[in-house]
Amino acid sequence: MISSTSSAVNIYPLSSYTFGTKDPRMEKDTSVSDRLARMKINYMKEGMRTSVEAILLVQEHNHPHILLLQIGNTFCKLPGGRLKPGENEIEGLKRKLSSKLATNSLGHQPNWQIGECAAVWWRPNFETIMYPYCPPHITKPKECKKLFIVHLSEREYFAVPKNLKLLAVPLFELYDNIQRYGPVISTIPQQMSRFQFKMVIS
Amino acid sequence: MISSTSSAVNIYPLSSYTFGTKDPRMEKDTSVSDRLARMKINYMKEGMRTSVEAILLVQEHNHPHILLLQIGNTFCKLPGGRLKPGENEIEGLKRKLSSKLATNSLGHQPNWQIGECAAVWWRPNFETIMYPYCPPHITKPKECKKLFIVHLSEREYFAVPKNLKLLAVPLFELYDNIQRYGPVISTIPQQMSRFQFKMVIS
Repeated sequence: MISSTSSAVNIYPLSSYTFGTKDPRMEKDTSVSDRLARMKINYMKEGMRTSVEAILLVQEHNHPHILLLQIGNTFCKLPGGRLKPGENEIEGLKRKLSSKLATNSLGHQPNWQIGECAAVWWRPNFETIMYPYCPPHITKPKECKKLFIVHLSEREYFAVPKNLKLLAVPLFELYDNIQRYGPVISTIPQQMSRFQFKMVIS
Repeated sequence: MISSTSSAVNIYPLSSYTFGTKDPRMEKDTSVSDRLARMKINYMKEGMRTSVEAILLVQEHNHPHILLLQIGNTFCKLPGGRLKPGENEIEGLKRKLSSKLATNSLGHQPNWQIGECAAVWWRPNFETIMYPYCPPHITKPKECKKLFIVHLSEREYFAVPKNLKLLAVPLFELYDNIQRYGPVISTIPQQMSRFQFKMVIS
């Protein structure tokens, strides 16, 4: 019998965290078609792409917000990225989070506590469209992307690459907003709904 | 440290299950406005409505399907309903499932194994719209609805009220289909994506 109690997640105020900058981390691709072409080349070498992304929660005005990295003026993404072939997904997500959001000083790495898997998305073809299931008749999906909740400590220092902006976006802004945030990010509110958020005031 | 391994769910073929009928169970309301008016009266008496609904999974063609009750020709809902004041949500969901889907003979009740909470929806006002969070500034929500995965055994007998149809709808049909299934049911695929489905062939 599986327990049916909801998991609790502590959420701290955005003001608990300190944000600095670090050297830019340029995107590997400058267009969607470049990205899909690179994906195809990597698939030939390494097989299905596996990627991991983090849902980092903070609170403002007593409402949960998600941290998103904004590239340019419109495109937003979750921090995370591609695993190396054979890499453990938890270790890989920690590595990606440190490379995207931590200072380069090894002594000051945030305590990334990787929590529950919140969603899994599949890319059946070398195209932008992904589904929250592997579609029937697709025997060789091209990517599997997993989203994990990452439990932040009460205080952290984040170093954000200078070419990116880190935004705290409220759940009510993401919800039902596929046009702005895409299918993966816009349904995070539904995936978070089962958690009991404890709004910690520090 | 919370475990990040995905939960596994066994899914059996639709053909493992037997379906019969039982006396009709009429809806309490004949229109949406009747329903909202009754909700308001109950709220005055009992406070926030709490309801529970079940996600019952079966497989066909190696793809997960959800069991939905169809009323008339278009409206679909998950089996479940309103809890009595103070009723335990697990016991309440078992009671509702038996009243909607089990034979009236007490000796042949399915073994309802209530599993993980998959989503929680909030109704801020006496209106049809619900959100997967309690909106900021709403201090007295009118309903809280929880969806649970219910793990079916390998064989079961379901008795469906004669005025309803029980449908097995594939995840790919629900996905991105808010027009047909509404916001709650159409995002079940995203909420199910974190589970590892084990397609059991019987």
